[in-house]
Amino acid sequence: MASAEDGEGPLGELELIETYFRPLAEATPGALRLADDAACLPVNPSCDLVATTDMLVAGVHFFPDDAPADIAWKAVAVNVSDLAAKGARPLAYLLALALPGAPRRDWMEGFADGLRQAQTAFAIGLAGGDTTATAGPLTISITALGETPRGAMLRRGGARAGDGIFVSGALGDAALGLKLRREVLHGKAGLVDAAVQFLISRYLRPHPRIGLAKALLEHAGAAMDISDGLLLDLSRMCRASGGLGAEIRMADVPLSKAAADILAKAPGEIKAILTGGDDYEILAAIRPEAEAAFVAAALAAGVGVTKIGSMLPSGGVRVLAPDGSELQFANTGYQHFG
Amino acid sequence: MASAEDGEGPLGELELIETYFRPLAEATPGALRLADDAACLPVNPSCDLVATTDMLVAGVHFFPDDAPADIAWKAVAVNVSDLAAKGARPLAYLLALALPGAPRRDWMEGFADGLRQAQTAFAIGLAGGDTTATAGPLTISITALGETPRGAMLRRGGARAGDGIFVSGALGDAALGLKLRREVLHGKAGLVDAAVQFLISRYLRPHPRIGLAKALLEHAGAAMDISDGLLLDLSRMCRASGGLGAEIRMADVPLSKAAADILAKAPGEIKAILTGGDDYEILAAIRPEAEAAFVAAALAAGVGVTKIGSMLPSGGVRVLAPDGSELQFANTGYQHFG
Repeated sequence: MASAEDGEGPLGELELIETYFRPLAEATPGALRLADDAACLPVNPSCDLVATTDMLVAGVHFFPDDAPADIAWKAVAVNVSDLAAKGARPLAYLLALALPGAPRRDWMEGFADGLRQAQTAFAIGLAGGDTTATAGPLTISITALGETPRGAMLRRGGARAGDGIFVSGALGDAALGLKLRREVLHGKAGLVDAAVQFLISRYLRPHPRIGLAKALLEHAGAAMDISDGLLLDLSRMCRASGGLGAEIRMADVPLSKAAADILAKAPGEIKAILTGGDDYEILAAIRPEAEAAFVAAALAAGVGVTKIGSMLPSGGVRVLAPDGSELQFANTGYQHFG
Repeated sequence: MASAEDGEGPLGELELIETYFRPLAEATPGALRLADDAACLPVNPSCDLVATTDMLVAGVHFFPDDAPADIAWKAVAVNVSDLAAKGARPLAYLLALALPGAPRRDWMEGFADGLRQAQTAFAIGLAGGDTTATAGPLTISITALGETPRGAMLRRGGARAGDGIFVSGALGDAALGLKLRREVLHGKAGLVDAAVQFLISRYLRPHPRIGLAKALLEHAGAAMDISDGLLLDLSRMCRASGGLGAEIRMADVPLSKAAADILAKAPGEIKAILTGGDDYEILAAIRPEAEAAFVAAALAAGVGVTKIGSMLPSGGVRVLAPDGSELQFANTGYQHFG
């Protein structure tokens, strides 16, 4: 395979591994420099292993012409977000990549850069992988592994009626950023460039809330990340918790200044904010007596959390407008084949 | 989503999980009925975790019109084969699936049947997954998790000069089966139907040698599975073991009767047998003093193993014909983007 030796011509499989992926695995315990058939991960005997997998497809989860570093970052981030929501400490990830033909070197360099940035940000390392050709779009499958103290992993199904419903950060930015990216956003007249860039970057570069894991483990009854929109994911938590209902006060839903400005001009964008997804913020149910301690622990970890409503004994997910009327949504979130 | 309730119309994401995947996870410890964001796997404190990932793409690793049960079986089998070669006991797997549109119910039933057959055969359970749409071909990414006693995982790089080179089962059947499937096989005149079906089934339904794990752990210096062809995979073992060479005696390479019959009529098919790949047999290097015990332990486990040559201090991989001359191959095995 001449290309592996002289750096010209199409990238070969061996060069892909040795040049781009191996350096990302050098510091991962048990990755064996990606030179073996499997990783051999030391396991903390007092912990459970937490494992999650998410697949991203060009044209579905990202735009084929997004910067490769952004694509790579997002692929790692959405997986780490699941670990964070479960209270898990990230350990390592495995990456399977289907490439539409041999990739260009500059594209691969960008992709590897994005992986490295995500690894540094989330304290996770590459442990293994697979690369294949495809006649279809770029497809990235990641399995992320983490650990929690034994028996401590947070579940979707641990909410109770009366629990406070909390979210981290601000919601809707990514969905608005996606609409900006698609040029279908209403209410963007007068939006300054910085706000546009902020919203798009919130879509391209989600920041999983790994800092919140300890506060969640100590205080949350249930937790999950918001990937398919607040309303759909909250309805999933309600269902998993034995058929609870939930009431959200729209006035309490945390919004960035950019999102609030858009909503003021285009009230219909509330739909994108509550159902658009891609937030990768945390949704948590907190017992009333633990709410203050949870907020304090989150603040100490540098993550803002906001109470947006309460769990009810039954009745589905309701969203109350500031005047007390109930807002209605035709679709509650993103679903494939929906 | 009407389709989830009435069983008509296109399959929705929720129905996919509840109808087809959840039953496959019922018996997997920590899978949480696929109703959460991550699996929570109990870990044996005296073990290392072994993790491997392989992605299969329609048109590259299987034919789009292969039976869905065969596709599913193979996707699990090729991952479990890596565990077996490392001496690991299978624990659980995560499945990410990119589907070209909503699948037909009969296709999904076949696919789920194949997963279940593989789970039963390899003592592994579904622990988590992700499903997405794609504009491209069906793409299946599996991460398999297993365990070995701490520090015991077999490596590619543990071979020494003088070690015996052993393989399990018989080689080349799958590569010949693939050529039959493609109708490009020479020497098939007079092949009985049963032999044709046997070779094709060896391609479609690899049987990872999980039974060999204990014998490998006890007696092997190095081991890996043969997925890209004996010659390429053996050259990888040589390189990982510090630049060893290897000498293979073709007369000792184990062949099925069907493969031997084809080779007798079409000597050129030796290339498919040694470089075609898809064998999913075990390649192991055994110290001379452990060879007899390894063969006995393998037999006790019900797996035939054959010594086909020896590791040399250097010099690449050589294949000797029965007359002692050296056979030459232009390409040693299957590579993507090669």
